[in-house]
Amino acid sequence: MQKILRVNMTTGNIATEEREEYQFLGGRALSSRVIYDEVEPTCEPLGKKNKLVFATGLLSGTIASSASRLSIGGKSPLTNGIKEANSGGTAGARLSRLGIQAVVLEGKSKADDCYVLILSKDEFRLEKMSSLKYEGTYRTSTLLRKEYGSKAGIICVGPAGERGLRGSAVAVMDPHGELKFAARGGLGAVMGSKGLKAIVMEDTENDLVEYGDRDKFNEIAKKFNKKLANDPKTRDVYHNYGTTGIVKAVNSMGALPTNAFRYGSSEHVENICGEKLNETILSRGGEGKLAVSCMDVCAIRCSTVYPDEMGNKIVSTMQYENIALLGSNLGMDNLDSVARLNYEINDLGLDTIETGCAIGVALDMGYGKFGNEEDCMALINEIKRDTVIGRMLGNGARITGQVLGSDRIPVGKGQGFPGYDPRALKGNGVTYGMSTMGGDHTAGNCFGSRNAVDPLGTENQGELSKKLQIQIGTLDCIGLCMFARGPLFAEPNVLADIVNYKAGTDFDSETIWSIAEETIKLEREFNIKSGVSPAEDRLPEFLYEEKLGPTNATFDLTTEEMEKSLI
Amino acid sequence: MQKILRVNMTTGNIATEEREEYQFLGGRALSSRVIYDEVEPTCEPLGKKNKLVFATGLLSGTIASSASRLSIGGKSPLTNGIKEANSGGTAGARLSRLGIQAVVLEGKSKADDCYVLILSKDEFRLEKMSSLKYEGTYRTSTLLRKEYGSKAGIICVGPAGERGLRGSAVAVMDPHGELKFAARGGLGAVMGSKGLKAIVMEDTENDLVEYGDRDKFNEIAKKFNKKLANDPKTRDVYHNYGTTGIVKAVNSMGALPTNAFRYGSSEHVENICGEKLNETILSRGGEGKLAVSCMDVCAIRCSTVYPDEMGNKIVSTMQYENIALLGSNLGMDNLDSVARLNYEINDLGLDTIETGCAIGVALDMGYGKFGNEEDCMALINEIKRDTVIGRMLGNGARITGQVLGSDRIPVGKGQGFPGYDPRALKGNGVTYGMSTMGGDHTAGNCFGSRNAVDPLGTENQGELSKKLQIQIGTLDCIGLCMFARGPLFAEPNVLADIVNYKAGTDFDSETIWSIAEETIKLEREFNIKSGVSPAEDRLPEFLYEEKLGPTNATFDLTTEEMEKSLI
Repeated sequence: MQKILRVNMTTGNIATEEREEYQFLGGRALSSRVIYDEVEPTCEPLGKKNKLVFATGLLSGTIASSASRLSIGGKSPLTNGIKEANSGGTAGARLSRLGIQAVVLEGKSKADDCYVLILSKDEFRLEKMSSLKYEGTYRTSTLLRKEYGSKAGIICVGPAGERGLRGSAVAVMDPHGELKFAARGGLGAVMGSKGLKAIVMEDTENDLVEYGDRDKFNEIAKKFNKKLANDPKTRDVYHNYGTTGIVKAVNSMGALPTNAFRYGSSEHVENICGEKLNETILSRGGEGKLAVSCMDVCAIRCSTVYPDEMGNKIVSTMQYENIALLGSNLGMDNLDSVARLNYEINDLGLDTIETGCAIGVALDMGYGKFGNEEDCMALINEIKRDTVIGRMLGNGARITGQVLGSDRIPVGKGQGFPGYDPRALKGNGVTYGMSTMGGDHTAGNCFGSRNAVDPLGTENQGELSKKLQIQIGTLDCIGLCMFARGPLFAEPNVLADIVNYKAGTDFDSETIWSIAEETIKLEREFNIKSGVSPAEDRLPEFLYEEKLGPTNATFDLTTEEMEKSLI
Repeated sequence: MQKILRVNMTTGNIATEEREEYQFLGGRALSSRVIYDEVEPTCEPLGKKNKLVFATGLLSGTIASSASRLSIGGKSPLTNGIKEANSGGTAGARLSRLGIQAVVLEGKSKADDCYVLILSKDEFRLEKMSSLKYEGTYRTSTLLRKEYGSKAGIICVGPAGERGLRGSAVAVMDPHGELKFAARGGLGAVMGSKGLKAIVMEDTENDLVEYGDRDKFNEIAKKFNKKLANDPKTRDVYHNYGTTGIVKAVNSMGALPTNAFRYGSSEHVENICGEKLNETILSRGGEGKLAVSCMDVCAIRCSTVYPDEMGNKIVSTMQYENIALLGSNLGMDNLDSVARLNYEINDLGLDTIETGCAIGVALDMGYGKFGNEEDCMALINEIKRDTVIGRMLGNGARITGQVLGSDRIPVGKGQGFPGYDPRALKGNGVTYGMSTMGGDHTAGNCFGSRNAVDPLGTENQGELSKKLQIQIGTLDCIGLCMFARGPLFAEPNVLADIVNYKAGTDFDSETIWSIAEETIKLEREFNIKSGVSPAEDRLPEFLYEEKLGPTNATFDLTTEEMEKSLI
């Protein structure tokens, strides 16, 4: 049986255990369950009683495409409730191959300590690496990669996480040495608060992944991989634009956050859209790349490398959310600016969504000009220099807005909105307000032509959000990338087979697709105990009153409609 | 019947109404009831849906001593729950004499508007007075006093309130032109958010106060006044030291907040105690004064005027809480420093307790040195200049601690602790955590030799807090100063008579002394609906872990013990 690895940062103690009751839980189902079982809901998120769980998925480390995402869970310093954020990168697969189902980080080392957890097939140990203290995520991961080899899995936080800034993310290295982020909810600050700078999984060619029926699993996984590779969305969209193919569509519906959520479409859309990204990468060449994978096995390959005019890499990977929050939301008119801001925020180890929201609020209150990259960079430099204004911004949109006196703070349960203004995509407003995760599209994104619900309508938004919370939650609970959903939705009974052959379970199709329900119920129970009461199941007042051009929509859903999303 | 005056700052509309169901409600019972009845619990405290209620007491405007306190209630931007703060000054009596039972402030004027509400016997009107925008409370009240006469009642906010800083107080002028404060909970920010700078009650020699039996009332009130005047506590304590007579006692028990709640007693206690204040005022002479009243009729006279070496007034009135939070809490070794800090914070219209806690957190995180008046003044100047660091501090201890990354934030339900460290006075810890008012000693202060409970013990603290929450709450609900409690506790049946003769009611003694229970229940219900869940009925983690010298106490009450205080 795969092991739970328990690392106590107060005592330095490291122990493994087998937990039968967790055996068939993966991803978010596992990370949320450990938090629910072990963390006092009222504890302080950055205190020693909180825990941080790094959980592998049910298919992690196998040949199945897009199935080795790493789920990170803890009590969030932004929402004060439970939070799960997951990420690509190689760490999920590496943990599974080392026989580790999950790492549970407990306690808190002394202030100013800087530890790295080294996991190899021979031993698990904590090493003090003071030289890495306050290093950026890029330098940290590059140094560790150099020391432990290019196939090592690496998880780390930047200076923002070490400084306890609530907008901090956890970085996870991909096969190419680039960083992906388990970005939302400030879990990087939780990791930093414990004194853990990084986790390194040495590549050992080991393979302790266990299977119910390995042959049958490999057979069905290959079929699934092929379908995913041949899915038109994979080929036509992800391979050309990564996740940025939707910029123009969101802009057209009037839901693209523009100038701190003052408007729903950007006049600069042609210069910051996915088509422009594609054209720029292809024409500049050099280190620029399209269709890059973020895990060992992935047919989707939605990462990109964005180069400057000389062909030198600026950042990888510039996603839709980055363009929305650091681009249109800050009034930017070009992708180069977005890429440079993106790089700096990544290097600090901050969540680009939260930080984009926070900088937007600051510009909206007069602390810089929209569309001015220098002004935004100056604010980011304040974070680097750890000044009071920098700490304010790094602590996210809510604290920034509270300090500066804004009455237009774009947050759900204290967490900054992603790139869909809820006035023009009301189902996402339901998700931001009602879901256990707060302002987070990954908890149930209602964008997409697949849904027959009018994004501006007041009907069926609750049901739609609920359906998507469960569907996407299910993928989270298996450890599958949400972009793998195309072929799985097309043949819903395949998912149960894949999981059953791998795990030796006997889920039927209906059960597997509702696997997230139990997890979401636990999460909500935890939230209520932690003080995130139903009073927080709503959006900020300005959204109900301020009309969003060009559609002139307000957020006008009734509480009754919102509550239809409850699981 | 006295009128409810409704002032809508959105429309400029002013209307009066008679509300029979409010007829026998006074003070906190009235202000909390209006908020409970009319304010959506989940509304944003600084948004247009919140209301601010200025309520008179049941004995307001009469000859009864210490009985015309003004109760101010609203949804607090600090606790996010209901808040009542009351104050001396002449406004309470002036409102009653004008026939106004309460002013209910609604809506929100346009940003940057600056209105003054003028109440006279002939008319009630809103006047735009842009010249007062961002003026300090002293200049504002002095200018208005000059214009409307020295007997006018004046309520105002300072620049902090107008800028929406959550630590803002509401200032109320006393008979001598000095300012008292309804300090806690950030209600000054609520008033400021509505665009109302001040309320002026012109003195009209009018007297619309109504009586059940005026003669009997006057007779019993005179007896009560005499008893209060002859109470040893009044003569020996309040007339000599104001409220500062307890500094040494709190220091001796190890509960005096020192250096940001790092220690429970100050090495400088002899220089910042009440005896020193008395001696200084007497020896310096000049404008210095002891035993000054803060209402038209008050036998207690606990105000003082503290002069500098030349005999020129620095501030009136320097209270115990100011000495605790701006003195020992900031490491100060002299009263002159405390007085100067006190003056500046008053002039900004901030709560000295909240701001003292916030500055303490900042010093504790290295933003200045304890005991250094210049460093503290520099921080206060940041607030004056409305910089980001100033806005952070003005928003109170919690936001300051969150931005700066402190894990030692001395707050209960988001509100800064007053001058009693809950580790060495555990009953107050119950009040800070469990009461509807959060970190506020006036909601149930367990300090005092009257109580047989060991302040360091773990038994009976819940019951003690409960008893005091009801007792003091009852005085709040009548509009009586809590320092008038001596003679009332000595002869408990007198209180019902006083109220009954005045209001024409027939409360029995037991009923009158439990009058606060209903109000506290409503407040708790409002809080729960507003999202202040039972998860917030606790104190910050550092108090449970960090030993407080010299007693080495931690806050070690069980949840069960805490919950015995529930009403």
